[in-house]
Amino acid sequence: MLVPYEIIRKKRDGGKLTAEEIDFMIQKFTRGELPEYQMAAFLMAVFFRKLDDQETAWLTQSMQASGKSMDLSSVPGPTVDKHSTGGVGDKVSLPLAPLVAAAGGFVPMMSGRGLGHTGGTLDKLESIPGFRVGLSDEEFVRAVRTVGCAIIGQTADVAPADKKIYAMRDVTATVDTMDLIAASILSKKLAAGPQALLLDVKTGSGAFMQKLEESRALAKLMVAICRNSGRKAEALITNMDQPLGVTAGNANEVEESIAILQGKGPSDLREITVEFGARMLAITGIAKDIASGRAEIEKRIADGSGLEKFRKMIEAQGGDPRVVDDVSRLPKAKKRGELTASDSGILESIDTYAAGMAVVVLGAGRQRSDDKIDHAVGVEFLKKPGETVATGDVIVVYHYNDEALYHESLKRMKAAIRIGSGPARTMPLVIECVS
Amino acid sequence: MLVPYEIIRKKRDGGKLTAEEIDFMIQKFTRGELPEYQMAAFLMAVFFRKLDDQETAWLTQSMQASGKSMDLSSVPGPTVDKHSTGGVGDKVSLPLAPLVAAAGGFVPMMSGRGLGHTGGTLDKLESIPGFRVGLSDEEFVRAVRTVGCAIIGQTADVAPADKKIYAMRDVTATVDTMDLIAASILSKKLAAGPQALLLDVKTGSGAFMQKLEESRALAKLMVAICRNSGRKAEALITNMDQPLGVTAGNANEVEESIAILQGKGPSDLREITVEFGARMLAITGIAKDIASGRAEIEKRIADGSGLEKFRKMIEAQGGDPRVVDDVSRLPKAKKRGELTASDSGILESIDTYAAGMAVVVLGAGRQRSDDKIDHAVGVEFLKKPGETVATGDVIVVYHYNDEALYHESLKRMKAAIRIGSGPARTMPLVIECVS
Repeated sequence: MLVPYEIIRKKRDGGKLTAEEIDFMIQKFTRGELPEYQMAAFLMAVFFRKLDDQETAWLTQSMQASGKSMDLSSVPGPTVDKHSTGGVGDKVSLPLAPLVAAAGGFVPMMSGRGLGHTGGTLDKLESIPGFRVGLSDEEFVRAVRTVGCAIIGQTADVAPADKKIYAMRDVTATVDTMDLIAASILSKKLAAGPQALLLDVKTGSGAFMQKLEESRALAKLMVAICRNSGRKAEALITNMDQPLGVTAGNANEVEESIAILQGKGPSDLREITVEFGARMLAITGIAKDIASGRAEIEKRIADGSGLEKFRKMIEAQGGDPRVVDDVSRLPKAKKRGELTASDSGILESIDTYAAGMAVVVLGAGRQRSDDKIDHAVGVEFLKKPGETVATGDVIVVYHYNDEALYHESLKRMKAAIRIGSGPARTMPLVIECVS
Repeated sequence: MLVPYEIIRKKRDGGKLTAEEIDFMIQKFTRGELPEYQMAAFLMAVFFRKLDDQETAWLTQSMQASGKSMDLSSVPGPTVDKHSTGGVGDKVSLPLAPLVAAAGGFVPMMSGRGLGHTGGTLDKLESIPGFRVGLSDEEFVRAVRTVGCAIIGQTADVAPADKKIYAMRDVTATVDTMDLIAASILSKKLAAGPQALLLDVKTGSGAFMQKLEESRALAKLMVAICRNSGRKAEALITNMDQPLGVTAGNANEVEESIAILQGKGPSDLREITVEFGARMLAITGIAKDIASGRAEIEKRIADGSGLEKFRKMIEAQGGDPRVVDDVSRLPKAKKRGELTASDSGILESIDTYAAGMAVVVLGAGRQRSDDKIDHAVGVEFLKKPGETVATGDVIVVYHYNDEALYHESLKRMKAAIRIGSGPARTMPLVIECVS
């Protein structure tokens, strides 16, 4: 017989919990049969004692099992998803999912909204007129099966345990611990049912885990959890010490994503899209190795089949597919502004957390969970760290609707950008692979 | 502005709380303005980070100030109380209070309920038909004045904060930490107003402080806090590495207590009752020293005046006083079972925490704060550590009502008892005195 008191006490004393004990706590709590104070005490004990990889995997599986999972058995090929821990200008999912689908993969992607200073895939997609991120399970599976990819939000019946536990952590100071963070993310990702998962763990000033050591630990933990749950998995630790690509906002990030699918767009965004695509093809066996995976993705950019998949995905999700040929159909801001350099020198660094917050206050993100997003507003970075700038050079172009928000944003953005005599603070785009 | 989340987080991160912050949490929780889950998380953070002596003093004062203090000025003699940190089979208060009263002391005893794996004095007394532990302040003071002793629960207006927090700790595995134990005990003991306090600090596998060092530190801390509050105080560190006496349960512990008052009962329980009684008489000046205190208590057993006081106390508290002559008036379990030795050898040790939990799961204690106790069920230890057993010997007799609970309890009890080639793990009954 399992007794909550004893399970709390065991973890409190540094013991290793069994799968059965973890599942007992999670399912009882989800059903409202475990008092909230016992879950609160348990979570604080976990905060101090931590869960090991195995315990974290069991927690993830238990939270996943608290709700329903997608049945992808009707999908006629390998399923693979990607998850990013979030950053500024990270629109990789938009070109990536269609490219992998064009190459023969099936991408059942369950994404999130902007959180804190970061943008969200769902918010970006919603700048496409008519686009629905709230498909039913049947619509979602059909879209994945017929188009090859779909990107939706979490449905109410996916991992209800995670929703209840997250709300509890939020008010008991038990949020910032890696095991619970990893379990929360993956309980939802795994419920979408992909056979393989590529993890993009960001590091640097615009990431939630700013230090490389922490990002590496999170990457290792998440890969271990995925494998424990019978999924193939690999993580890349990538650079979020500067915005990814040149745009940050919503409609403008869709436009940049379309550019990538047209063989244009900034080189960093293209490189990371190709790299993730290649690894998703390799891990599922569609490509025999990463090098041929890269060639395959490049080919799907060159022959336009990635763009065609994106068009089909938009159509399947109720959006206006003509945006892929005519980006003027996306929402446009009324006004244009510029942030110019007041000094000459080297652009040494962009505090990417602060830059992300500048984009949020412009109206592209939410400061409160009930704020409404202005999909039309956003920024364009004409200069990136390492580049030389002269006084008066335009560093950031603004697309905005509200003067007051623009000035607040401009002030923050200016403070985030550091120009000096160098050297610039730079790191590679892909820092390491955890597999 | 004080924010509960920030106070939880501050303690979680090892910060030292201010008197204001501690008082804010305690008074808000007492008034029902702080969610239980936040108090649970706070208590678990305190468990890990600890309170220093100053924080513990502030906590004690805050809990005491949450209610009112007893006025014992009408009691015509020295007032003295005893408190045990709790254990398995510890029913000492039941024979002790009447014996001290019979010798001329006045014992205003405010006791607690079972906590974690331990039994509680109030739960035991409530197995006496009609017995009321919930006297009004006036009834309590009158009973102490006229009978010489009374044993009640904390009244709603004495340290209400402690009452709420004690219940919360019980079900969140935040009981066994010295600072919270000291603050809990002393907030109500000081409010109840005795001039002197004897502390029974348990040590060993069935104590909350299992290690002698920890028990000693708790004893010193509590003695110091009492003296700072103008009370006489002394602590004995006593053996809880095996159950005290032979019974653990509720009704059966009352029966064993009556046996002590009749000059019967197990020698360990008798010895510790006499020792505490002697010291309570000595510290208040009723006896000129501990040796004559011992003689005085022995006399009150021999002449039956202790038993008579117990009868009067039961009567004053609404219970059926005939139980002292006829224990069949106590609740009886329907079924009897036995745990027999599967091996021959020496009974080397009893894991007294596990044995206590076995008694709790049988129904004699609570796993959740709203569980109902079955006063009739309990166990009898026919063998204690150091004794020789032969295969098939009865080690523990069970009195139970529910087959499933019995089998679960039996399984746990079996695992708690170790039979081998010896030697047995034993220590003296009274280990040391802290004064």
